[in-house]
Amino acid sequence: MPQTQPHTGSAQAVRAVLDAALAEGRTALTAPEGKAIADAYGIPTPAEALAEACDDAVRIADRIGFPVAMKIVSPDILHKTDAGGVRIGLNSAAEVRGAFTSIVSNAKAYAPGARIDGVQVQQMVPAGTEVLVGTVTDPTFGKIVAFGLGGVLVEVIKDVTFRLAPATEDDALSMLDGIRAAEVLRGVRGGAAVDRAALADLVVRVSRLASDFPEIAEVDLNPVFASASGVMAADVRILLTAQAPPVRRKFTREQILASMRRLMEPSSIAVIGASNEQGKIGNSVMRNLIDGGFSGEIHPVNPKADDILGRKAYRSVTDVPGEPDVAVFAIPAKFVPAALEEVGRKGIPNAVLIPSGFAETGEQALQDEIVAIAEEHGVRMLGPNIYGYYATWQDLCATFCTPYDVKGGVALTSQSGGIGMAILGFARTTKTGVSAIVGLGNKSDLDEDDLLTWFGEDPHTECIAMHLEDLKDGRAFVEAARQTVPRKPVVVLKAGRTAAGARAAGSHTGALAGDDAVYDDILRQAGVIRAPGLNDMLEYARALPVLPAPKGDNVVVITGAGGSGVLLSDAIVDNGMRLMAIPDDLDAAFRRFIPPFGAAGNPVDITGGEPPSTYEKTIRLGLEDPRIHALVLGYWHTIVTPPMVFAELTARVVAELRERGIEKPVVASLAGDTEVEEACAYLFQHGVVAYPYTTERPVEVLGAKYRWAGAAGLLT
Amino acid sequence: MPQTQPHTGSAQAVRAVLDAALAEGRTALTAPEGKAIADAYGIPTPAEALAEACDDAVRIADRIGFPVAMKIVSPDILHKTDAGGVRIGLNSAAEVRGAFTSIVSNAKAYAPGARIDGVQVQQMVPAGTEVLVGTVTDPTFGKIVAFGLGGVLVEVIKDVTFRLAPATEDDALSMLDGIRAAEVLRGVRGGAAVDRAALADLVVRVSRLASDFPEIAEVDLNPVFASASGVMAADVRILLTAQAPPVRRKFTREQILASMRRLMEPSSIAVIGASNEQGKIGNSVMRNLIDGGFSGEIHPVNPKADDILGRKAYRSVTDVPGEPDVAVFAIPAKFVPAALEEVGRKGIPNAVLIPSGFAETGEQALQDEIVAIAEEHGVRMLGPNIYGYYATWQDLCATFCTPYDVKGGVALTSQSGGIGMAILGFARTTKTGVSAIVGLGNKSDLDEDDLLTWFGEDPHTECIAMHLEDLKDGRAFVEAARQTVPRKPVVVLKAGRTAAGARAAGSHTGALAGDDAVYDDILRQAGVIRAPGLNDMLEYARALPVLPAPKGDNVVVITGAGGSGVLLSDAIVDNGMRLMAIPDDLDAAFRRFIPPFGAAGNPVDITGGEPPSTYEKTIRLGLEDPRIHALVLGYWHTIVTPPMVFAELTARVVAELRERGIEKPVVASLAGDTEVEEACAYLFQHGVVAYPYTTERPVEVLGAKYRWAGAAGLLT
Repeated sequence: MPQTQPHTGSAQAVRAVLDAALAEGRTALTAPEGKAIADAYGIPTPAEALAEACDDAVRIADRIGFPVAMKIVSPDILHKTDAGGVRIGLNSAAEVRGAFTSIVSNAKAYAPGARIDGVQVQQMVPAGTEVLVGTVTDPTFGKIVAFGLGGVLVEVIKDVTFRLAPATEDDALSMLDGIRAAEVLRGVRGGAAVDRAALADLVVRVSRLASDFPEIAEVDLNPVFASASGVMAADVRILLTAQAPPVRRKFTREQILASMRRLMEPSSIAVIGASNEQGKIGNSVMRNLIDGGFSGEIHPVNPKADDILGRKAYRSVTDVPGEPDVAVFAIPAKFVPAALEEVGRKGIPNAVLIPSGFAETGEQALQDEIVAIAEEHGVRMLGPNIYGYYATWQDLCATFCTPYDVKGGVALTSQSGGIGMAILGFARTTKTGVSAIVGLGNKSDLDEDDLLTWFGEDPHTECIAMHLEDLKDGRAFVEAARQTVPRKPVVVLKAGRTAAGARAAGSHTGALAGDDAVYDDILRQAGVIRAPGLNDMLEYARALPVLPAPKGDNVVVITGAGGSGVLLSDAIVDNGMRLMAIPDDLDAAFRRFIPPFGAAGNPVDITGGEPPSTYEKTIRLGLEDPRIHALVLGYWHTIVTPPMVFAELTARVVAELRERGIEKPVVASLAGDTEVEEACAYLFQHGVVAYPYTTERPVEVLGAKYRWAGAAGLLT
Repeated sequence: MPQTQPHTGSAQAVRAVLDAALAEGRTALTAPEGKAIADAYGIPTPAEALAEACDDAVRIADRIGFPVAMKIVSPDILHKTDAGGVRIGLNSAAEVRGAFTSIVSNAKAYAPGARIDGVQVQQMVPAGTEVLVGTVTDPTFGKIVAFGLGGVLVEVIKDVTFRLAPATEDDALSMLDGIRAAEVLRGVRGGAAVDRAALADLVVRVSRLASDFPEIAEVDLNPVFASASGVMAADVRILLTAQAPPVRRKFTREQILASMRRLMEPSSIAVIGASNEQGKIGNSVMRNLIDGGFSGEIHPVNPKADDILGRKAYRSVTDVPGEPDVAVFAIPAKFVPAALEEVGRKGIPNAVLIPSGFAETGEQALQDEIVAIAEEHGVRMLGPNIYGYYATWQDLCATFCTPYDVKGGVALTSQSGGIGMAILGFARTTKTGVSAIVGLGNKSDLDEDDLLTWFGEDPHTECIAMHLEDLKDGRAFVEAARQTVPRKPVVVLKAGRTAAGARAAGSHTGALAGDDAVYDDILRQAGVIRAPGLNDMLEYARALPVLPAPKGDNVVVITGAGGSGVLLSDAIVDNGMRLMAIPDDLDAAFRRFIPPFGAAGNPVDITGGEPPSTYEKTIRLGLEDPRIHALVLGYWHTIVTPPMVFAELTARVVAELRERGIEKPVVASLAGDTEVEEACAYLFQHGVVAYPYTTERPVEVLGAKYRWAGAAGLLT
């Protein structure tokens, strides 16, 4: 593969073209300008030249060699085909002459007054599969590169995939495999496969071009013809922007961790607006802090009280002794700026802003004001407009909701208060082990990437699950996710998937880059597990810390109900996993334990009437055999093996193997009367992810763990 | 649109071609034979003729007019392109001459010894969108017709749709809209729309051809060129079969209803193998019948007992007094044939065969034996290998499981016993109102279409939900579904979706007709709601009878949590519904009830801190305004409006409107602490489908109701 980094001279050539166009106030480059840039970045395009008159065109065609294509060149005409400005397959001087005349007159008719620079005469591109390569500037993620098959049909089906620019060669190769029609590139029905290395190299070069020059808003190579012998872009369209992207305040990883540690593991908390009056938020927060058992200092601040809930109250946060780590605000919005000033002067690093009445109710100015105050004093803000936050391992409940104390491995965050309440109720009813629950609200400062950076380091947190409606800085999030994912799963529920349509755009790539498609691909590129819905996020959060990571792809189903086995197999394929092809010796080993009319293979169908020992022997075999990487169990309620008997034997075998150093993910679907609910709860507590009345849920959770294991590089 | 029914002469022409080919032992027709059949059925194809020698070819081309295409004609070469047997765009006599020579020599090299009949010289087809129209013979549904876009790309993406043959014009038009790339047919990027009527007519004609002639196994028109001016099939491939399809025993609707009524509403039941011994199936069945409160006669049959559980026992079913409606078998498989003989001779119309040990354990011969006995005596059989059946409104529990007595509107059936147990546990824990639960097991006789026919008539049943792994007779099922769907929703969980790959096939259509794609399209065509998983089926079964049918498409979200509103909107679009565009006057009406910073529009965001009256007023408005057809509520747990307060006010408003004759589906997502679970149960009992901790589930259920309402023709 050729070098992808252009030399300095090439970058200067691009710079010259861009500067000239911007100086003329143009944001659309002409085809010759596009070609000059493509040449500088090693992007293959057909030989061509600009003909200003008919005779030029014939001369150029003679030099390039017939057949040639011809296209109008005008800064005012973007859609050349629509303007009747394109002719192809011209085989003779006479045809070239005729084409020149008709192209120019068509263009004049289409856009009277357009500046016409001439007609480009171009080498005909060798046949191949039409693909599209482009870049756009995404409001969330900045420069992104797109790849898809070209042509009208794919535009309709939107079979296109996105990555952050610049893309690596691996990114680019993953894009070739990431479209639904990937098979076409590998050659179908006798067609030859395209040159994958050349195509990936093209994607890398285009992504680097966009990344190197902030003023390049969109690049559209459409179509690119890809064949076994290489790639060539038939059309290069480049759009510029004169606007510089907004600059966002940045913190180093160390700065983030330092303030987040004081937020999440505080020694001293001031509660501004603490109150003795029941029903007030400042009362709920105080009570929850005290009742939750927080062992650090709790300092109520209230100008009108001497003590609150038995603790000495201070007239102002300025009077609070020592160095509080966190100031929790439980006062109306209009009083926040003055109090925040005091917090800043006091040197308190974190402000937790519970009150609403800021941007979410239209009070953007008030929010801008507090952001400015916080920036001036170096205070990091959580909120405003939040329920507060929980840090269970600190017995810390700085919220106006009810306490939650089941310590465990999942950290949950939500942009919306309603979703935060759903998290709390779900966690309580399912006894989900939680390390933290954090409200993000308006995200005036602290957001998902700060929390991800912290939870990635937090030893109590084994999995992070986040509800979000937007990302303020998609690149910062991706960076934090990439640091975290190799160590722990990150689950994201991205709301607002269907609300925004495709944005108005000046290129094919832009039109294809709907918000959600971009989020989907780039979150996956970052190794994030995307939850399709709220309940999925909650179940992943509950189950992922319970399951050990799989070490390979071989999933085996062991079932007492043939019917469950079929549904479990469906779910395994639906969730991107594969049923292990059972080797003969393993098949024979399973058959020793099951009735003659049972079915080995995969699913292993032990049949319905079997005693506990059959479940036990087959599950032990499944755990012991090193070729098997994960077990999916299908239990069928019978008198011979009641639900709790199944649950206890399964938990026992799993524990036994764990003691012998063998850990594999085991999930179970329990079909039966209501006793299976208790059995599922027992199994969950003992490390087996189990659900009643569903064959889908346990497999979806296993699939989420597999997606993470793949992203974390754990699968061999 | 032209007449689609060919005249008798045309049918005779087809018959002659088929008979001649079959007489020669051929199952693949030649291109000229295919064209003859196409001509007879009014399927447009290019003008063409067979050239046996080079000079013929030139003569024919002169007559048709240049350019022409040429193709090898050989009964031994199916894939002409692969054999180098196709040339297109031939513009002169010289080109035709050269093409003839090379086609023949390529074909000889490709398939030495192949019979070569000559080369077909063909009118070049006018440009257009490439589509595929075909038919195959499906093992479940018989003759089906396929439509998709043509070309390599679509073959890879498998964008194709299926209907039963013969298809109506409406079916055919729905196929044009039923592919993902449907937009291409409507014209994209300045292209003209295709002639939809002509294309639909072609689909109808092809489907009728396949349907009229059982021996036509597959028809493949690929590509068909469709344009604004019409359609033309460039290639016609027809494959025959010499095998007649198996004939299945048929019953009339009246026969089915007569025996099903006696099965589901029996006056007298004999239990063969009834037992006093605890733990025996014959004991469980007796106890469940008695304890369940069945008010009809219960006659135990046991040669070794005088009485069983206080009822007089009979040595043989022959001795049972009166005319029992049902004989429940609780004896080992090997004793079933003899007992079934006696049941037959006694004239008992229904045998419920609980025992296993038949086809499912490899004992096919034993199963064939009982089928023969039953057929001889006109006994209908349920099972074997089942848990039995429940008919709650008869207080009838003829199973070895535990009784279930929550009477209600859903009838559930399952092919698998494990799934049956999951139905029972789920129903009990959610208090689902049930009319019947029926095990189908090996389906040696009674199957889904019999049950559907009955439940369609049963006044207690408002919704039918069926788990199935296969259909013995897909057409009988579709017929029963079509009769039932206009009156009640039919939900199907089809297991085994991913197990079977695409079958080996001799045509493009055949290769595209994977089992599941066909099931999916044809179940939809029949108006059946397909549940994606077990838990979905169970939730649909629980909720659909609770919800009134919507009368139009306008869905409005009213939410206390903006975050839930976003997720609910996502779910509405995901489930194929649409958020109503709120007219200005309605918007103003909502705004009167919500805070100034709340958002009207849709979702109507009443904001989080509102009192019960805000929920109440907005919900009442939503129900009262006749332009709104369904409500989706998003509740957020606050101290101001606790969960049960929300539940009670919602139930009260819904009831109040119901009394005024206004019924609309209302579903709710409750986000909050665990009290929301009780609130959801209360809402469900009062006709509002409500779920905690999920924004997806209530909307999925509403979506299922909408899909049914659409299929039943209830949406205006």
